[in-house]
Amino acid sequence: MHIPSLKQQFQVAFSYDVHFTEGLFNADNTLIRDVLKQDGGAEPRKIFFVVDDGVAAQHPQLMGAITSYVAAHADVMQLSGPITVIPGGEQCKNEPALVQQLLDAVNTYHIDRHSYFVGIGGGAVLDLVGYVASVAHRGIRHIRIPTTVLSQNDSGIGVKNSVNAFGKKNFLGNFAPPYAVLNDFEFLLTLEDRDWRGGIAEALKVSLIKDAKFFAFIQYNAAKLAARDMPAMQYLIHRCAEMHLQHIAGGDPFEQGSSRPLDFGHWSAHKLEQLSNYRIRHGEAVAIGIALDSVYSHLQGRITEAELDQIISVIRTLGFALYEPEMSVHLADAAHPQSMQHGLQEFREHLGGKLTIMLLEKIGRGVEVHEMDGQLVEEAVRKLQQY
Amino acid sequence: MHIPSLKQQFQVAFSYDVHFTEGLFNADNTLIRDVLKQDGGAEPRKIFFVVDDGVAAQHPQLMGAITSYVAAHADVMQLSGPITVIPGGEQCKNEPALVQQLLDAVNTYHIDRHSYFVGIGGGAVLDLVGYVASVAHRGIRHIRIPTTVLSQNDSGIGVKNSVNAFGKKNFLGNFAPPYAVLNDFEFLLTLEDRDWRGGIAEALKVSLIKDAKFFAFIQYNAAKLAARDMPAMQYLIHRCAEMHLQHIAGGDPFEQGSSRPLDFGHWSAHKLEQLSNYRIRHGEAVAIGIALDSVYSHLQGRITEAELDQIISVIRTLGFALYEPEMSVHLADAAHPQSMQHGLQEFREHLGGKLTIMLLEKIGRGVEVHEMDGQLVEEAVRKLQQY
Ligand SMILES: NC(=O)c1ccc[n+]([C@@H]2O[C@H](COP(=O)([O-])OP(=O)(O)OC[C@H]3O[C@@H](n4cnc5c(N)ncnc54)[C@H](O)[C@@H]3O)[C@@H](O)[C@H]2O)c1
Ligand SMILES: NC(=O)c1ccc[n+]([C@@H]2O[C@H](COP(=O)([O-])OP(=O)(O)OC[C@H]3O[C@@H](n4cnc5c(N)ncnc54)[C@H](O)[C@@H]3O)[C@@H](O)[C@H]2O)c1
Ligand SMILES: [Zn+2]
Ligand SMILES: [Zn+2]
Repeated sequence: MHIPSLKQQFQVAFSYDVHFTEGLFNADNTLIRDVLKQDGGAEPRKIFFVVDDGVAAQHPQLMGAITSYVAAHADVMQLSGPITVIPGGEQCKNEPALVQQLLDAVNTYHIDRHSYFVGIGGGAVLDLVGYVASVAHRGIRHIRIPTTVLSQNDSGIGVKNSVNAFGKKNFLGNFAPPYAVLNDFEFLLTLEDRDWRGGIAEALKVSLIKDAKFFAFIQYNAAKLAARDMPAMQYLIHRCAEMHLQHIAGGDPFEQGSSRPLDFGHWSAHKLEQLSNYRIRHGEAVAIGIALDSVYSHLQGRITEAELDQIISVIRTLGFALYEPEMSVHLADAAHPQSMQHGLQEFREHLGGKLTIMLLEKIGRGVEVHEMDGQLVEEAVRKLQQY
Repeated sequence: MHIPSLKQQFQVAFSYDVHFTEGLFNADNTLIRDVLKQDGGAEPRKIFFVVDDGVAAQHPQLMGAITSYVAAHADVMQLSGPITVIPGGEQCKNEPALVQQLLDAVNTYHIDRHSYFVGIGGGAVLDLVGYVASVAHRGIRHIRIPTTVLSQNDSGIGVKNSVNAFGKKNFLGNFAPPYAVLNDFEFLLTLEDRDWRGGIAEALKVSLIKDAKFFAFIQYNAAKLAARDMPAMQYLIHRCAEMHLQHIAGGDPFEQGSSRPLDFGHWSAHKLEQLSNYRIRHGEAVAIGIALDSVYSHLQGRITEAELDQIISVIRTLGFALYEPEMSVHLADAAHPQSMQHGLQEFREHLGGKLTIMLLEKIGRGVEVHEMDGQLVEEAVRKLQQY
């Protein structure tokens, strides 16, 4: 017996808008109203809010503003259940009880595929809320309102969501684009300096591998950005978000292949976060990772000394450290699980066997390589230590 | 301040093959080996098996055959962890502990995005295994080996997966195409008659709304199919699977809109399953639902009496009932939650406010309508009761 195989092939189109605003819940701001009305429905939609407790603490007027806003637009939306505040920061992704609590709410308040499930917070809260929204009823409409620089220009505008499990970061998750992303710059006013600065590292990353003009902007405005200049930050977030979206759309949105070209500076960053027990935050680790791979690129003759100096100078002016002691532990022993260089092996395993690392060919252009010279990595670390 | 919105838009391509075979784990059957090698990898891949206990019980040699097969192809695959047997049937989708057990295995045996997670069983086990595979590491490669008629021609070849929660069917799930589907007809030999027959209802459904020639095939072979003729069943499954795949690819694979055109006969079927506490199985309920909507189509003058007679005759020859007492409970009272007609309202809510029901225009062509006449539904039920 031979029965021919059937070949299934199709494409699925996804689209969503990333909006920028201030005072999202001000009475006269119609953005949320307008976004909800895009679904063409006639009846008021159910809307459910989850808020990062770090945001709630710094914006005590927020809960009242949300309630008033929804009430003022009762023809378009109605609150489903209470506004739910959950712990912010990485810790929330370690809590299966929070996933359960949010799923409970979906069930209790009859939130269906025509309702809206809104997360307001940093990247961690958005990852968790997005995960719940993606699996409840095979996907309910999810609106992200990111409140940190990192989430407004990178983590909150993409298609990934996740929670941690078995002590492993992002063990559970999937790919599920949001219904819309609403970036309100006012939230950024209350960030800690470290979180304000941290998100800038992702913009620096994307500028170095893709856009020399954007690098020049960051270079020119580095001191202003460090001093929390809002217009400079707004431009930075907008441009970084734009490039991040283009990267996703033009590449492999659901990571079906195994290349990860936006991960410049990230092989060591991930490892340093882990080696420091997350004392070093993601953006801080990425800044170091960028410095390291830039020095390495120079040592290999890929970029000039003048280019390297510009990069190092920008990173310092932004207020980032270039070196942390974890970088030197077992430095020469790439096989040691506690060495930074072990991160290369972990990165290769993650990519599925073939190592791909982004280096710099010049400012504004990245180049992929498939091996890293351990001695040169060592030399680069020594150099960063001495700056 | 006005900063322009960014529009994100992209398409994601998905593809997978549905293969047909017999003796999948026979030493000389290279199908699994060939499918795994398609990934182009050089090293042996980790492969993990989950087996429906109904299948394991009826195929006692299966576990040994899997082990020998993998050992014989050690250059291409290696077993990750023990072959895991879980309870089959709807009950497995109600057990959060099973989701946890399978996620545990992913963690313990280091099953990553380059490994294979294989489910062998009926639609329920495949829904559960597919769900775990879709969320672990944001999606690991999932191979489905369906063992019932329904899962080989319908549920196991599509893109949906799910488990139940809060007592609600398919409360958790998402859309995630499999890596491949391997239909082995030998599994069907051990099905209960009711499950053998049940899957035929989905083929009848698709033939009636899309393909008169396929209906003629079922009509001509109805007695053979009822008598468990294997070649007739093989053709039926292949053609039904083909049309189901085309429907998914040509329509709205991830159900982003709100139409569900393949749900002919299903508005009453879902309700009857529920009203009967699942005594009436899905395929049996679908057969009744088809009969009901065919009579209704005739009462509205859409199909001729001769066409209706052909449809009813096929359903009976296949061995299905045309009527169950649950259909008459509160029949005239569509507002009563225990009446079959309440299913119309539930169906509308599920679709998001607008009712869309498929009826027949002729054999082989469906037509969508947006309201149902309660009196005519009543009349159709009375007619089915009297056949
Ligand atoms: N999904 C993705 O594609 C993706 C990409 C990169 C990173 N991430 C994830 O993002 C997370 C990091 O996100 P993050 O950098 O936004 O930090 P975060 O979410 O961990 O938040 C950091 C702290 O800031 C607080 N906070 C948030 N907004 C605030 C505000 N406006 N004012 C004052 N405090 C505020 C939070 O309560 C928290 O304590 C990580 O879990 C990471 O895995 C996801
Ligand atoms: N994902 C989808 O798109 C989709 C579509 C329709 C239905 N479904 C789901 O499919 C499930 C129904 O699937 P089903 O009809 O295959 O039934 P099932 O999975 O419930 O299995 C029925 C019984 O048959 C046993 N069994 C399975 N294979 C056998 C074999 N070869 N020999 C002997 N016994 C065997 C099982 O152990 C079980 O006891 C439901 O949970 C339904 O929700 C999913
Ligand atoms: Zn990053
Ligand atoms: Zn069905």
